[in-house]
Amino acid sequence: MKLNCDMGESYGSWSMGYDAQIMPYIHMASIACGFHASDANTMARTVALAQSHNVTIGAHPGYADKEGFGRRSIAHSMDEITHLILYQVGALQGICQLHQAQVEYIKPHGALYNDMMKDTTVFQGVVNAAAHLKLPLMILFTSQQQYLQLAHHAQVPLILEGFADRRYQDNAHLAPRSMPGAVIDNANDMLHQAHSIIHHHPFHCIDNGAKIQLNVDTLCLHGDGANACTFARQLRQLIDGQL
Amino acid sequence: MKLNCDMGESYGSWSMGYDAQIMPYIHMASIACGFHASDANTMARTVALAQSHNVTIGAHPGYADKEGFGRRSIAHSMDEITHLILYQVGALQGICQLHQAQVEYIKPHGALYNDMMKDTTVFQGVVNAAAHLKLPLMILFTSQQQYLQLAHHAQVPLILEGFADRRYQDNAHLAPRSMPGAVIDNANDMLHQAHSIIHHHPFHCIDNGAKIQLNVDTLCLHGDGANACTFARQLRQLIDGQL
Amino acid sequence: MKLNCDMGESYGSWSMGYDAQIMPYIHMASIACGFHASDANTMARTVALAQSHNVTIGAHPGYADKEGFGRRSIAHSMDEITHLILYQVGALQGICQLHQAQVEYIKPHGALYNDMMKDTTVFQGVVNAAAHLKLPLMILFTSQQQYLQLAHHAQVPLILEGFADRRYQDNAHLAPRSMPGAVIDNANDMLHQAHSIIHHHPFHCIDNGAKIQLNVDTLCLHGDGANACTFARQLRQLIDGQL
Amino acid sequence: MKLNCDMGESYGSWSMGYDAQIMPYIHMASIACGFHASDANTMARTVALAQSHNVTIGAHPGYADKEGFGRRSIAHSMDEITHLILYQVGALQGICQLHQAQVEYIKPHGALYNDMMKDTTVFQGVVNAAAHLKLPLMILFTSQQQYLQLAHHAQVPLILEGFADRRYQDNAHLAPRSMPGAVIDNANDMLHQAHSIIHHHPFHCIDNGAKIQLNVDTLCLHGDGANACTFARQLRQLIDGQL
Repeated sequence: MKLNCDMGESYGSWSMGYDAQIMPYIHMASIACGFHASDANTMARTVALAQSHNVTIGAHPGYADKEGFGRRSIAHSMDEITHLILYQVGALQGICQLHQAQVEYIKPHGALYNDMMKDTTVFQGVVNAAAHLKLPLMILFTSQQQYLQLAHHAQVPLILEGFADRRYQDNAHLAPRSMPGAVIDNANDMLHQAHSIIHHHPFHCIDNGAKIQLNVDTLCLHGDGANACTFARQLRQLIDGQL
Repeated sequence: MKLNCDMGESYGSWSMGYDAQIMPYIHMASIACGFHASDANTMARTVALAQSHNVTIGAHPGYADKEGFGRRSIAHSMDEITHLILYQVGALQGICQLHQAQVEYIKPHGALYNDMMKDTTVFQGVVNAAAHLKLPLMILFTSQQQYLQLAHHAQVPLILEGFADRRYQDNAHLAPRSMPGAVIDNANDMLHQAHSIIHHHPFHCIDNGAKIQLNVDTLCLHGDGANACTFARQLRQLIDGQL
Repeated sequence: MKLNCDMGESYGSWSMGYDAQIMPYIHMASIACGFHASDANTMARTVALAQSHNVTIGAHPGYADKEGFGRRSIAHSMDEITHLILYQVGALQGICQLHQAQVEYIKPHGALYNDMMKDTTVFQGVVNAAAHLKLPLMILFTSQQQYLQLAHHAQVPLILEGFADRRYQDNAHLAPRSMPGAVIDNANDMLHQAHSIIHHHPFHCIDNGAKIQLNVDTLCLHGDGANACTFARQLRQLIDGQL
Repeated sequence: MKLNCDMGESYGSWSMGYDAQIMPYIHMASIACGFHASDANTMARTVALAQSHNVTIGAHPGYADKEGFGRRSIAHSMDEITHLILYQVGALQGICQLHQAQVEYIKPHGALYNDMMKDTTVFQGVVNAAAHLKLPLMILFTSQQQYLQLAHHAQVPLILEGFADRRYQDNAHLAPRSMPGAVIDNANDMLHQAHSIIHHHPFHCIDNGAKIQLNVDTLCLHGDGANACTFARQLRQLIDGQL
């Protein structure tokens, strides 16, 4: 089980996140590529930081919308999605040449991530980019065969991720943030769900509903909360069997 | 002797240049990378066009200034220049994956090109990017040993270019556009200078001054003039010995 | 009956439209404000051109999306829509100070225009901006009482517009461009529909369906088609009773 | 003597500065206008905050360079400078309509501020914008008659500002940041210089050199330092005769 976190979301003179504090605890850094956040200099700093901690580098491309931080959908054709991803991942690969580092996976950001999980045209556009780049794609754990098959046909390996701090619905979808209780802000509850996910144990859906069991490769850490650094440390200890 | 031209300078709904008409006549296309012009979709179209004509693909990175079309200097440190170039060339390499195409050289654009030729810090920043990417760098023909040595030390091959439609000063610098007669707009004069450059013959500097001789690898065609398509055809015929 | 047209849609070095040729024929120029197209210099030029032809100046604000030319929806809250409009109209008012010109109306652009006509939250956001600025709002002719009442309550005068080159559905909505025949490209048919609209005569909906009658204040000319200049002249002659 | 501070320099999801803590202590807020920092929503929030503390609102326009935070020069013609300012001040005036607030002065930001004080073409461009808008212009205290006369001829009132935390040279220019001791980071020294400026007492130039006396209308507070809130309170107390 790997811990992944979005990294490198500063921009120019604006700082965001606790990259230096969190990087030591994670296995995989999903690095913003300059469209929803970051810039060439921030990317260079973030790649160097990841490499100094032997953290796997992933590209974290998003819609071209800094003002909205990539959290607003923008309609694209399938090919436009492919180009959007190729451009941003290529840019990060260019920056990685500074440090002989490699981009090892792609994880779309924000609205692009959400759109991909509910619109197969967007998903196909993303998968095509990953196929051209011969890189695995990190997506939300899904039991929708359609998604798994699209990736399979394109020979794109999937990295499935789960969330320790979000409640699930019984179809394995995340409960939308608008639902009361959708976000787990109690550390014990978060760690309990993380433990279940790590050990493939069933755990309760939102509202103490049915239990589901996730078979995921990685847990996503949200790096921007007030307790992000503490959570990072605890989750890593849990994964390493030290908690 | 190769003919090179800036390509792919449209942006979103705005069209610029005569790419489809000029591409058949050139050997090398310097493709804008989305900072001073272009976007991921335009880049994908331009790479496909270049490949369909077996034209060598180069990256044409510029300052991040669409409103000024990359023609205004923006101060950068040496490392910032390197990051700026790595980002843009990497992005074009990403787009090239669509078509199994390769970026084969780097030619900076506009103010970045000019700044590089008069500020060794900028030049070193560009050279460092080319070295990390293991790509040759196209620059204005220069007899300044300092520039040649910086590239040599970084093991970056140089591609030297000359201009058929611009008068030179006797130090081999281009006469600045502000000097009367700096731009050659008469087709015969342009073809005459091109012929001299191609055959390494000496030709007159501006004001019928001293003669200079250029030893260049490529001639640059300006793709945006009213007669760009005619010039492209004539220059290619001249190079091919058919004029 | 007034003829209105989008103007000032160039950007930096990229040119778009036939502003100089069309301006003599129109009564109202809807001038882009720098978010989906244009920039401060282009706006200054366009205001000067409008004023030299005694054309009424309107603000044409859009979503902040130059790459998509403002044709892609971006989710905004009602207040965000208000701020988006206030910023852009204010900017054009600032530029107008150069020439002691006035902004006399607001017409949203592209996806913002469409979103406003189908989402009352967006419409309310636009109306609130118009109310703060004490300016009339140009919208697509509608018989939906809800829209008319929202504007009325905010004391925002409406300027209703019709299209001579688009077929209508019998609910007075435009036939979507995806329907065959939705766009009228035959000049005679366009002039015939324009004549009906000008004289408040009923005319056929798409597919020779039921007849509708529009009671509009202005006809919209599309300034970007190949025949835009000819259409502009003909429509103006028709309005002036000279055709 | 008024205390002024740059405000509203956040952007989208990125936060900067201590606006809420500092606003109670200042008389004049120079509000960023969306080119080097801020956006329409941030501007609306900042105007509301200023108004709730009865703080005078000024426009703080800069070069269009978010990545460089307006700290890098970009070449503009005189007219382009005028348009740049008119656009941004107009935009803030538009936002001010939300709250029936007024923009009462203009203070250029960063590189534009510096360029204006050393290039009379830039200064004339700024003055022309202020003249069109009938607004006073805040500039660095200067004894260069040329600047005072350009403003006088255009009937643009000047608001002269001094710095409590920067050493001066004996020509009343600020010592450049690159000189050791140029920035005063000791609170007592800063308050001592502020006291001298407020009471028109002579004070030592850098290196305990000659004494100069400034006749300024306002003191500039830097809002981004670690001690900005403490400095704001102390300077306000000093101005109010309570320290």
